Order: sequence, then structure tokens, then C-alpha cells
Amino acid sequence: MDTLEAIKSRRSARAWEPGSVPSDIVRELLTAAFYAPSTSNQQPWHVVVVDDRDVLSRAAALNPFGLMAAKAPMGLLVCLDKDLERFPGTGIQDCAAATQNILLAAHALGLGAVWTGIHPDPSRVESFSALFGLPKDVTPVSFVLLGYSAQEPRPFDRARWGRVHVNHW
Amino acid sequence: MDTLEAIKSRRSARAWEPGSVPSDIVRELLTAAFYAPSTSNQQPWHVVVVDDRDVLSRAAALNPFGLMAAKAPMGLLVCLDKDLERFPGTGIQDCAAATQNILLAAHALGLGAVWTGIHPDPSRVESFSALFGLPKDVTPVSFVLLGYSAQEPRPFDRARWGRVHVNHW
Repeated sequence: MDTLEAIKSRRSARAWEPGSVPSDIVRELLTAAFYAPSTSNQQPWHVVVVDDRDVLSRAAALNPFGLMAAKAPMGLLVCLDKDLERFPGTGIQDCAAATQNILLAAHALGLGAVWTGIHPDPSRVESFSALFGLPKDVTPVSFVLLGYSAQEPRPFDRARWGRVHVNHW
Repeated sequence: MDTLEAIKSRRSARAWEPGSVPSDIVRELLTAAFYAPSTSNQQPWHVVVVDDRDVLSRAAALNPFGLMAAKAPMGLLVCLDKDLERFPGTGIQDCAAATQNILLAAHALGLGAVWTGIHPDPSRVESFSALFGLPKDVTPVSFVLLGYSAQEPRPFDRARWGRVHVNHW
């Protein structure tokens, strides 16, 4: 799928057909994450691939905005390893760029995905860290839920030309 | 350009041919930014389009990692409007996703771009806010420099398979 088309037609998916995501597709999604830009090219991320139904159900119970995890074919938990940050505080943006790459790659590959936010909510950060056994210096940033979408949400006009300024606010 | 190809072949560009970026291309880049996902779909961003050579030179002097702004055909300053954040602390990730969309769209359109980080460096946040006259609740997050690249950096293997975990760390 063309890049600009992917950017403009991507929507969040929150309901999926049953059935797992093939492993070669998962590999493409992970590759997309790894190819995101990062501060000083430190790539300060780890990804937990989640396809265990029990783990997905337990994750759903930890996030009121992520209940659909219980029915998602899989999840990708993007985590920041603070030990890999050369400049503290920059890694969250790096992980967000990696997450966006996953969403676009998923859409281009015919999947439907949704970004559920973990960081900076303290309760979610703590409970997800415990569920996935994350080391002390690792922070869960985003949990992308995905599979083959059961819906086909239509793109809508998101342009906000009133928020564009030229050379000065 | 195919989405996965764009993701994998994108590199940072730090030297450009002289000449401005056509306005229809700038419009595509801004559209790409607006189509990023955001927390509760709040789209908490503004973008300052910077093509004034004096302003680019002054921006270069404010960031030791962004000296190439002085020679960049243009810059896009992605800013977070904290008044638009429904959940405080989430907007930085939204702005990072918008920034990544700009980088991918630029690459797909034949431009070369680089993400220079402003947030969370306090000195850069303050000096960029002053230079661009940003309101109190607006934070400069990233300054994307772009134009037609004078280099053709080769993609390299960024995969980090040792950073993938399955269902648990």
C-alpha cells in the first residue's frame, strides 16, 4: 500500500475476526518498529509479543481503555529501556515513533490495530510491569492490539488547517 | 512509495540541495501530521512551517544537535498544546507519532528529513518557545528539517531480534 494512502486511510480497529496473525506478518511488524528513528539512534525499545489468551485477558483487566485486549488476536507491548537512553526523557518519543511504524505497517498489511496507552498512567505502568515481569529500568509505553479487523472504519477528514502557523505563532 | 519500503529505507538527511519545497508538498506533509493517531483523538498539536532563512539560522544557533537548520530549505516545528490534552502527559507521544508521519511522508515524496528533538531539553524548549512566540501552554516537541537531500544514505539493518520477548520478559 502506498505510504500516503496508508497514513490517510489508517483508523483504529477495536474488533477483530478470530484467528491468529501469521508469524511472517508479525516479523514485518517488529521490523517496522525497529526501523523507527530514535535519539542518537539508540533504539531504546524492547517489544513483547503477546498471543497468550490468558495474558491478553489479564492485560484487558488492567486498563479500562483497553478492554478489547481480551478479544484481540494479539498485542505488541512496546517498552522503553531507560538504560538505553543517551538523553534521559527522550525515549518515550522514540517508542511512540516505533508504535506509529507498527500501526502503519499493520494497516498496509491488511490488519487493523489500535494504540492503547500505558505510559504515563502510573497505575497502568505498574500493573503492566508486574504482569509482564519487566525489569526495574524498563517502562511499558504502548500496547498495540491487532488482528484482522471485523470492521471497516471509514477515513474522515482530520486536517486542522487552523493549527498551522508560518515562521511564527 | 510502498509503506513497508518507506519505513525500511527512510534515513535521516542532514544536507540538502538548495531550493524550496513546493507548497503542495508542504501541504501533504502537514496532512500526514494531522492524520496521526492521538489520545482520545484530541490531535493536540500545532505546526509552525519555517522557511524564513533568518529564522532557520536563529533556530540553528539554539540547538547544538540542530546546526544543520541553518542550511535546511525548511523546518516544521511540531508543538504540543497542553490545553488540548485530555490526559496530561500523553500529548508528547501524540506529537511524536505526528512527527514520524511527517518523516515517512517526506521520504515517500522524495524528500530527505531529520527529526531534531526539542522536548524535553529545558533550554531548547525555552529558547524555541521564545523564538517562535509560543503561548504559555504550548511546548515545542520536535523540529523536522527537510528538503531535497544532497546525500543518499544507504539503509542498514536495524533489526534487534534480541529485544523481542514472547508473552513475558
